[in-house]
Amino acid sequence: VFRPPEAGVVAITTDTLIEEVDFHRRWTHPSLLGRKAVAICVSDLAAMGAQPCASLLALALPRDLTGGFFRDFMRGFLAEAACWGAPLTGGDLSRSSCVSITVTAWGSITEGAPVYRNGARADDLVFLAGEVGLARLGLDLLLSEDPPLAELADSPESLEAWAAQPERSRCLTAHLLPRPLVQVGRWLQREALANAMIDVSDGLAADLGRLAEESGLTAELDLSVVPRPFAPWAASREAVERALLDGGEDFALLFTASPTQAQRLRTLWPAEFPECRAVGRMLAGEPAVFLIKEGRASEYRPGGFDHFR
Amino acid sequence: VFRPPEAGVVAITTDTLIEEVDFHRRWTHPSLLGRKAVAICVSDLAAMGAQPCASLLALALPRDLTGGFFRDFMRGFLAEAACWGAPLTGGDLSRSSCVSITVTAWGSITEGAPVYRNGARADDLVFLAGEVGLARLGLDLLLSEDPPLAELADSPESLEAWAAQPERSRCLTAHLLPRPLVQVGRWLQREALANAMIDVSDGLAADLGRLAEESGLTAELDLSVVPRPFAPWAASREAVERALLDGGEDFALLFTASPTQAQRLRTLWPAEFPECRAVGRMLAGEPAVFLIKEGRASEYRPGGFDHFR
Repeated sequence: VFRPPEAGVVAITTDTLIEEVDFHRRWTHPSLLGRKAVAICVSDLAAMGAQPCASLLALALPRDLTGGFFRDFMRGFLAEAACWGAPLTGGDLSRSSCVSITVTAWGSITEGAPVYRNGARADDLVFLAGEVGLARLGLDLLLSEDPPLAELADSPESLEAWAAQPERSRCLTAHLLPRPLVQVGRWLQREALANAMIDVSDGLAADLGRLAEESGLTAELDLSVVPRPFAPWAASREAVERALLDGGEDFALLFTASPTQAQRLRTLWPAEFPECRAVGRMLAGEPAVFLIKEGRASEYRPGGFDHFR
Repeated sequence: VFRPPEAGVVAITTDTLIEEVDFHRRWTHPSLLGRKAVAICVSDLAAMGAQPCASLLALALPRDLTGGFFRDFMRGFLAEAACWGAPLTGGDLSRSSCVSITVTAWGSITEGAPVYRNGARADDLVFLAGEVGLARLGLDLLLSEDPPLAELADSPESLEAWAAQPERSRCLTAHLLPRPLVQVGRWLQREALANAMIDVSDGLAADLGRLAEESGLTAELDLSVVPRPFAPWAASREAVERALLDGGEDFALLFTASPTQAQRLRTLWPAEFPECRAVGRMLAGEPAVFLIKEGRASEYRPGGFDHFR
């Protein structure tokens, strides 16, 4: 039971992580998994500009995982929930053949309107706050090296030690322990500097496609201005480009702003925030995403994560 | 995003159904499963006296179930959600090896306090509104006859036709399509006639144990006054008694009321509500449940559903 804010609205979100689909037990320590389950939900709130308030957890576990796994998972979950001001207030525990984690979180917006996905306007610029592609490249590392990380790394420090190199560590951390951009989302909402916003969970192009679809506009994306992570283990230049375009789960924020808003944004952007750059624009036209490459536009064909494709 | 009621509080609940643990696809039509997933969440709201407002659905499906199963499930879900005034407002869809359904629902209490589990007082009477044991006896029917119900029965009418006898039909319907007692819960909260309340989801004795535990009291339960369903297929008189005591999922409401409240309750109880009867009382003492049988009290040893016992 909660007493809602006296003014304004409540934003609420739910997200599921399924073993062998969304994560692998071999590669993630239960406490990092607990943290990530909270983080991805909190990121959804951030993308609306909401201040996290509280969370619920519906956890289904195989019978043999109810001891240490459960304790470690909850330790991470509670620490992360406390970190974002979204304490656990209830939930459901059940048995299953594989680990299934559903987190519900809600947050408040007491002044001004929430930022929706459908608010983009023609001639808005598209901005990206934070980096993309890192999490996918981190997953590539795990896929190729298959380390028993769950036993080795239960913190950013131990991950870093295992990774051995800063660029490996950055990508692994992005995959295993993403940081939702709550302050950035809150700030954009308060300052009314974003017309539409989404967190990049399924891939930069796919999520831009959602803004385009819901706003009834065409989007252009210029990948040449998106920072390319240094990932010497990537198979090719194309693999890095695919990670940028289709790699999800970095939880960067993608938003649109009018040219006037964009000017204010550039003046006011707080120095302590992650970098923010214009990566495209919205145009009147059928919902679609066009990639700009060497001055030419080609329509993007989906490659982002879709559970059922 | 929702605008909360201007006064009062919001009650929120989440509940998971896992294939092969909480249900079997062979025995339930996807549309009944969709209905039940909503109903059990709404029942949690009813047990606090909240008026359902809206719902979220996190659904994980095996790849081969995304066509007809999904359509039928959603048809049932949306119909049931509409029926209780808890329309679907969002959610998450993902892939998994077994069907996993997590519903989150919330409701409002705009006047008076919610009814918690910890509000029982010494000398309160324990009341049961609705029946118990039916759902367990319905499950017993399915276990013993193993009918391919999913193909036969997608409505109360077709269930009834399959069941052939009214007592079989009642038990099957209780198991496959439980009806949460929303009006009853709302009325008890509005009239301030319940000090503590819970819906009987895990078993009469187990859930009474929760009221006792959370209220810091001893509970006495007199099973002789609880109506015994007529179930000629039950293995024995003891099997029926176990269904009464430990069979969950009937979603009857169990609540406590002081002798003064009890008197008002008996006077005011609306004729259209399911029957309500005093089945025990709360006493000062260590949290425990005692069963009264032929004038003697014996401490209840748990047999209700516990996912991890």
